[in-house]
Amino acid sequence: MSEPVVVGVDVGGTKIVAAVVTPDGVCGPVVRVPTPKHDVAVLEQTLTDVVTAAATAAGAAAATAVGLSAAGFVDAEGRSVAFAPHLPWRDAPVRDRLSERWAVPVALENDATCAMVAESVHGAAQGRDSAVLLTLGTGIGGGLVVGGRVVRGAGGMAGEFGHMTVVPDGRGCECGGQGCWEQYCSGRALLRAAQTAAHGSTSRMSELCGGDPERLTGPMVTESARAGDPVALGVFSEVGRWLGLGLRNLVAALDPEVVVVGGGLGAAGDLLLDPAREELERRVVGVGHRTVPPVLSATTGPEAGLVGAAVLARRSLQN
Amino acid sequence: MSEPVVVGVDVGGTKIVAAVVTPDGVCGPVVRVPTPKHDVAVLEQTLTDVVTAAATAAGAAAATAVGLSAAGFVDAEGRSVAFAPHLPWRDAPVRDRLSERWAVPVALENDATCAMVAESVHGAAQGRDSAVLLTLGTGIGGGLVVGGRVVRGAGGMAGEFGHMTVVPDGRGCECGGQGCWEQYCSGRALLRAAQTAAHGSTSRMSELCGGDPERLTGPMVTESARAGDPVALGVFSEVGRWLGLGLRNLVAALDPEVVVVGGGLGAAGDLLLDPAREELERRVVGVGHRTVPPVLSATTGPEAGLVGAAVLARRSLQN
Repeated sequence: MSEPVVVGVDVGGTKIVAAVVTPDGVCGPVVRVPTPKHDVAVLEQTLTDVVTAAATAAGAAAATAVGLSAAGFVDAEGRSVAFAPHLPWRDAPVRDRLSERWAVPVALENDATCAMVAESVHGAAQGRDSAVLLTLGTGIGGGLVVGGRVVRGAGGMAGEFGHMTVVPDGRGCECGGQGCWEQYCSGRALLRAAQTAAHGSTSRMSELCGGDPERLTGPMVTESARAGDPVALGVFSEVGRWLGLGLRNLVAALDPEVVVVGGGLGAAGDLLLDPAREELERRVVGVGHRTVPPVLSATTGPEAGLVGAAVLARRSLQN
Repeated sequence: MSEPVVVGVDVGGTKIVAAVVTPDGVCGPVVRVPTPKHDVAVLEQTLTDVVTAAATAAGAAAATAVGLSAAGFVDAEGRSVAFAPHLPWRDAPVRDRLSERWAVPVALENDATCAMVAESVHGAAQGRDSAVLLTLGTGIGGGLVVGGRVVRGAGGMAGEFGHMTVVPDGRGCECGGQGCWEQYCSGRALLRAAQTAAHGSTSRMSELCGGDPERLTGPMVTESARAGDPVALGVFSEVGRWLGLGLRNLVAALDPEVVVVGGGLGAAGDLLLDPAREELERRVVGVGHRTVPPVLSATTGPEAGLVGAAVLARRSLQN
C-alpha cells in the first residue's frame, strides 16, 4: 500500500493556503489563493481546486485525506462551521459535504485548535501533558491541551482566551464585550500603541513611517525595537506586560506544563516574551511554592493551522 | 468480604471534620474537632483519633481506607502537602506517612479538588464531561473537570480561579497580587461591600447589626436580602455581577457543560446566581452562536470536601 497523501488546508479570512504534509509535519509545496468570501459554492470549488493543486505540486495524483483549518466556530464534533465572520459558511455541514464530494476522509477544526494540535505534535508543546497556546495576530487565537488531549469545550468554543475580560468596562471589542484581552495584547493592539507613541516622537519608528503614524506597520515596530529604539521597546514592553497579566490568569486557572506563543506578533520572540515572563513570574499565585511554566515561542510557523489540520486528517485515516 | 469502611476527612484551617461515606456519597455521623495548627505530630495524632472516632460512630471497627481533603497546596501526585497557610505541614509526605501509620490506603487532595470530585460524582456536575466548580467562602476555591476527569495541573495548582486578575492594579490580595477575583467575589468581599453599604443607611441590615456595620455577618446580609431589603439586595447584585464577570472569563477559556457554585456564599443561591447569570449571558463571547452553560448551585453541601476525599480513597482501593 502506498503512503497516504494528506493535504492540510488553512481556510483563512483573506487567503486559502494548502500543502501536502508528511507524518513528520513537513509541508510540501505551498499553494495560496485569495478566499472567495461571499458564495459557498465558489468557496468549496476553490477548496477542491486547491487540494488537487497541492497534491499535484507534491507529485501525487490526488489527496488520500484532507484536513481543513477554518477561521470560524466549528462545532464540538468537527462536522460543521457554525459561524465564521469572514467566510460565507453558516451552520454549514462542511466535513461530510466535502468528504462526500472528494470521496476521502475530511477533518475539520477551527484554526486555533489546529495550531494547538500542530504545536502539540510537532512543535514547542511536543510531549507535554498540558499546554496553553496563544496565536497573536489581529486578535488572540487560543488552544489548550489537558491530559495530553486538545480541549474543544462542550460546544467547541474552548480557547477563546482573547475574549477574557482584563479591564472591566475597558476598550470596546468586536465581540460586543468590553476590556477583552485581545484589545490590549495582539498585533492590532501593538500597532495602536505604537501609533500613539510615535506621535510627535523623533524615534526610529517615526522615521520608518515617514513621520506619519498612520503608515506604521507591525514589522516597522519590530524592526525599530530590534534596533534599540526606546519608543518601540516601550511599546513591546507595554503589550508584553498585558500578555503576562493574561498568562497569569491562565496559569492560575490551568497550571499548564508550558505556554507557547505564536502568530505574527509572537514572531517578535523575546522582545515580547521577556516582559510577559517578568509580569507572569512577578505575581502569579503561589510563586515560591510552585513551578511557573516556561513561556516559549511557537515553532511550527505560519503554516501551523494547516499542519495541525493534516495531523487530524491523518488520524481520521487510522480510525 | 465485608463492605469497605471509607472515611473522608476535611482538614481545614480551623476545624477537622470526618465521617464514613457510603458508595452513594452519604455521610455517617460527623466528627468535628479544632485543628491543631502548630505541631505536625499533634495534628497527625488528632487525625488518627478522628478517623477512629468516625469509624466507631458508624458502627465499624476501623477504617479500610481514608481520604484527606487538605486546605493547602497538594502536589500533582497527591503525595505531599507542599504548603498550607493554616496547617503545620510543609513539604510533608502526608499520604505515605499516614498510610503506613494506619496500614490502609490513603488518598490526599486539596479541598477544592475534593469538592469538585464530590460534585462530579454525586452532585450538580454528575455525568458531565466538563464542569467548573467555584466554592465561595472566605476566598474562592476552584475545581475543573475536562474530558470527564478532574484537572490537577502540571504541579497540582490548577483551579486557583480566585487569583485570576479581574482589575489591573485593583484591591490587594494575600497572595501578593492585586485585583484578584476573590477580592471582589467571596464571602469576605460580600461582607466588606455590605459594611460599606450599611454605613448611615436605615435598612433592615443596619437594624440586624444594631447600627454597627462592624458587627454584620454574612447570614445577616443574606437574611436581609431574602426579606427584600434593597440595600442588601444591591450588595448581592454587585458581588453577583463580579461573579458573572469572572465566569465569563472561565466560559470563554473552557466552554464547560456546566458551572457549579458552592460554599458558604454559594448557599445564598439565586440571590447571588441571578445577577451572575445575567452578567454572563449579556456579554460572553459568541453569544447567539453558542450554548451558555447553566450556572447551578452545588448540592453536596458543607461536607463536599470529605465526600470527595472519600471518593478518591474508595478508588484507591479499587486500583
